[in-house]
Parts: sequence; structure tokens; C-alpha cells
Amino acid sequence: MEKNNHFDLISYLELRTQRIEKILETYFPKAKGYEERVISASKYSLLAGGKRFRPILCLAGCEVVGGDWERILLFAAGLECLHTYSLIHDDLPCMDDDDLRRGKPSCHKAFDPATAILAGDGLQALAFEFFTHPELVKKVNKTRLLKAIYWVSKAIGLRGMVGGQMVDLLMEGKKGNPKVLKWIHLHKTVCFMEASLLSGALLGGAQSKELRVLSSYGKNLGFAFQIVDDLLDIIGDEKKIGKKTFSDVKKQKLTYPALFGLEKTKALASKHIQKAIESLKFFGNRGEPLKALANFIINRISTSSKSIQNEQVSL
Amino acid sequence: MEKNNHFDLISYLELRTQRIEKILETYFPKAKGYEERVISASKYSLLAGGKRFRPILCLAGCEVVGGDWERILLFAAGLECLHTYSLIHDDLPCMDDDDLRRGKPSCHKAFDPATAILAGDGLQALAFEFFTHPELVKKVNKTRLLKAIYWVSKAIGLRGMVGGQMVDLLMEGKKGNPKVLKWIHLHKTVCFMEASLLSGALLGGAQSKELRVLSSYGKNLGFAFQIVDDLLDIIGDEKKIGKKTFSDVKKQKLTYPALFGLEKTKALASKHIQKAIESLKFFGNRGEPLKALANFIINRISTSSKSIQNEQVSL
Repeated sequence: MEKNNHFDLISYLELRTQRIEKILETYFPKAKGYEERVISASKYSLLAGGKRFRPILCLAGCEVVGGDWERILLFAAGLECLHTYSLIHDDLPCMDDDDLRRGKPSCHKAFDPATAILAGDGLQALAFEFFTHPELVKKVNKTRLLKAIYWVSKAIGLRGMVGGQMVDLLMEGKKGNPKVLKWIHLHKTVCFMEASLLSGALLGGAQSKELRVLSSYGKNLGFAFQIVDDLLDIIGDEKKIGKKTFSDVKKQKLTYPALFGLEKTKALASKHIQKAIESLKFFGNRGEPLKALANFIINRISTSSKSIQNEQVSL
Repeated sequence: MEKNNHFDLISYLELRTQRIEKILETYFPKAKGYEERVISASKYSLLAGGKRFRPILCLAGCEVVGGDWERILLFAAGLECLHTYSLIHDDLPCMDDDDLRRGKPSCHKAFDPATAILAGDGLQALAFEFFTHPELVKKVNKTRLLKAIYWVSKAIGLRGMVGGQMVDLLMEGKKGNPKVLKWIHLHKTVCFMEASLLSGALLGGAQSKELRVLSSYGKNLGFAFQIVDDLLDIIGDEKKIGKKTFSDVKKQKLTYPALFGLEKTKALASKHIQKAIESLKFFGNRGEPLKALANFIINRISTSSKSIQNEQVSL
């Protein structure tokens, strides 16, 4: 099944995902007083599975520059808190109004909008608690840690992810163009993915040249990821992607399939993946995990789509 | 007018407020692309005035332990971003549903709920961008900075401010008791105020003993602040407090006036202020600014209330 014969991506992901889950469960605050409801709501969304792709990127960024990924697990776990907060808020009725997430009712459906807003707010704060946790601080270079937090804060902020989500909402039902669409993808998705990778690399001791190469890889990977995500809204299997399909279509979201059609969009995703893999040459064999991750993204088009699943069943 | 003849609180506040405003304006991100709307919304709420009480506490905490407050202005400014984010989200229709804030339409009225959620989210991220800004990092001890961020993150998180707001909402219209009320105040308001003060002290080079004293002062001041805030919901002058009065009453919020009546509530606020001032003895003359701030809080009962304003007019 795997394109990368020499690298066992499944075991690679399994080990790291398990370790991230363990950290999230261990360090997640336990209710001590009356705050039970908001703790439950945030935990409900955070521990609902998910690919843990951003923390994985962070760990992979650390590893590719020769760092020890086990030392920065708390940082990686913080990135997942940020991602989950963004999903909870994006799903709200006044935002994207999505009822299903990670295969379960979204947070505001399982609880209510006020609780969901607070759960998201709390998860954002929790991320920074993880980033500055004494257990992490004693294991990494402090100057690099502060820089990593700075990069991530910018990536998820007003001129990053939040700005991207704003424009994504504003463009609903409007006639868009490739320039605006690229801007939305860059800000809503790519910046944070790139920052996840680069923060891991920074904490792993990356040099400037390594950061430049990873920045190029991260950007291409991020664009490919979002393009594939847009594609799966149309051709995806709801059970496999854990959310309703045709959600973007119904909301008249500005997406690549909407602008260019399915085939051209697939080709564009492939082009980004090729470019991402190309930049990895710099790292030689060390780049294998990142190469496998890039292939994993593009393979989602087939492994998570409806038609291919049926073909697999009929084999 | 001032109770503290030897200390000019007005000049003290004026200088620091001006410097904080200047930092907020200078470092506030400028829209570079299509994110104009969310930048405007967050700026609208952040630069709408306000007492800047949390950043002031942070600077005062730094000063009282002999630190240079001008070095940590970016940190203090970050605290105001956090406070403003919490106000924007608290005011949302599905939360406290308040239309007026800092004397202007609240963010979701001036814009819309989706934009207000994103503006709040972006301000929370911006706070951490400020906390780890290279301009700040080069001026302070990095270990202390990371610890300060850790404390603040916890104070505003699921088991802090966010948890407090959750329970505040859950108790609306319900029969409460002093224990729950104290828990709400502690989590919703006191923890963050205390953390604002302590983070400043930490960055100013505070010793453990100093932090313990300031923790006691901060907690008492925080409780007094929230009790006075509850009082002003009933006896306050809307123009002076910048928000609608009887808002808590209408929503059947659990407050001290609701549980104990006005007089007992005033006495309780005074008791907390006395305790706060008592703990300052440790600092000798250096404690003057914090003493004046404590008196400022309790004096709001008279300076911001309707009746006294009329009396002053008639003098």
C-alpha cells in the first residue's frame, strides 16, 4: 500500500500519535471546582481522535535537523490544542456552522455555543501553558523556545489563521479569484502548518539554512493539505474524513474545485507535493519521514474518497 | 480629592497609561492583505480606552520589587490584549449579551458575532506574540519570562478565567451561595489580576517572599475590584463605567449585592482593601503606588456612582 517501501510511515505515525495522545491526556487539567462543563467540552473535542498532523509535523521538524523529538512532546501537544480550538470556533453556528467533526457532533452541538466558545478559548490558553510548561522549559533552549512561541503566535493570529478564517467567511457566496483563494489558504492553513514544522526544527537546534528549506517544504505541504481538504469535501467518504461532505459547496465557499474543477485541482495538489519532496533532497536520508508525510497527504485523495473505498472493498 | 496626599496617583496612572497605549498602537499588526475587518474589529475594542488596570498592575508589580517598568511594557500590553479578548467574548449574544462596552457599542454590535469571536481569538494570540516579542525577550531574564507566561496562561485558562466565566453563565437565574460566588470571582477576575501583578514582579526580579506578599495583596485587590464592579452595576453612572447598569440584575447574575445587599457588600469590599493595604507594609515606602491603587478601587464606589456624582455637581 505504501509508496515508500523503505520507510514504515504507519509505525512512525502510530508511535508518535500515541505519545501525543498520552501527553494530552496526562497534562489535561482536571476539574477541581465548578468548571467541570468547560473542561469536559474542551476535552471532548481535543481527545476525539484526529490525525494529529500539526504535532507530528513539529516532531518531524525536530527530528530532521537531528533533534530529540521526545523532549518536545509538550510543545507538539500544545499545537494540537491550538488546532482543536480553531476547529471548535470554526464549527460554530455563526461561523461555518458544521454539526459533525472528527466523526462526532461538533462541540457546540454536543454542548452549546457559549460552552464551545469558552472551550476553544480555554484550549488556546492551554496551548501556551503547554509551551511554557516547566517540564518542557528544562529540556530545551530557552531562547529558541521563546522564538518558537513567537512564530506560532503570529501564525495563528490576526495576520495568520484568524485573518484567514475571517476572509474565508467574508468570501462565502462571493465571486472569488485565485489570488484571494491562495491568500485564504496561506493564512487559514499554511502559516500554522509551516510554523508547526519550523517550531519543532527550531527546538531541535535547526540552522538558518535548514529553516529556509523547511519553510519551503512546509508551505508546499500546507497548500497541498488544504487543496486535498477542499477536494475531499466533494469526493471524500464522510466516515473516513469524519465530517459532512459538500459542506463547502452548500456554503458556496471559495475553493480550488469551485474555481478550477476536480482534475486541475488534483494536479495542483500533486505539483505542491512534488515541490515539497524536491526541497527535502537537502536532508538526504533524514528527509524520509517528511517525504512519506508528503506522500500521505496526496494519497488521501484516493484513500479517503468514496469511489476508491468501494473499489478496495470489491478487491 | 486623593486620599494619598504623598503620592500623586493621577500622574502615576497618566504616564503609565500613555506608555501602554503607545505600545498597543505601535505594535498592533497592520492589515497587509484582506484581513482588514478582523484587524479593525480587534483594534476597535482594544483602543477604546479602558482603565488599563491589568497592565498597570503588572508595571506596579515590577516597580515594587525594584524592577524597571519601562523594560516590560510589551508584556503589560499583552495583558491588556487578553483582557480585551475576554470582554469581547463575554459580551457576545450567547454569553452575557451586552451591547455597550467602554462607552461604545460592543464589538459584536459594531461588527457582528463571527467577527467578534475572531477578533477575540486574534487578541488572545496577539498577547502571546507580545509576551515573546524579540524587543521584550532581549530586555528580560528568559527563565522568568517563560514562567510569567506560564502563570498568565494558567490564570486565563480552563481552570482560571475561562472556567470562571463558564460557571458565571451556568449560575444565571439559579439560587447561589457565597461559596460558589467566591469561586466565580476568584476564577473569573482575581486569578488574572493576581497573575498580572505577579508576572510584573517576576520580570522585575522578585524573590519568593516578595511574590508571596504580592499574591496576598493581589488576591484581596482582585476580590475588591470584582465586588465593586458588581456594586457599580447597581449604583454606577453609565457614562462613568462605560456600560449599561442593572445588566447583572436583569440577567439574574449571582453577585454579592444579590446575596448580601448593598451595605454588607460595601463593607466586604472595604475589608479586602484593608487587607491588601496591610500586606504592603512589607515594602515600606515602595508600596505607595500599590496602596494608592487599592484606594482607587474602593473610591470607585463613590466616584463612579450616580448619587455621588449628583452631589458633586451640586457642590
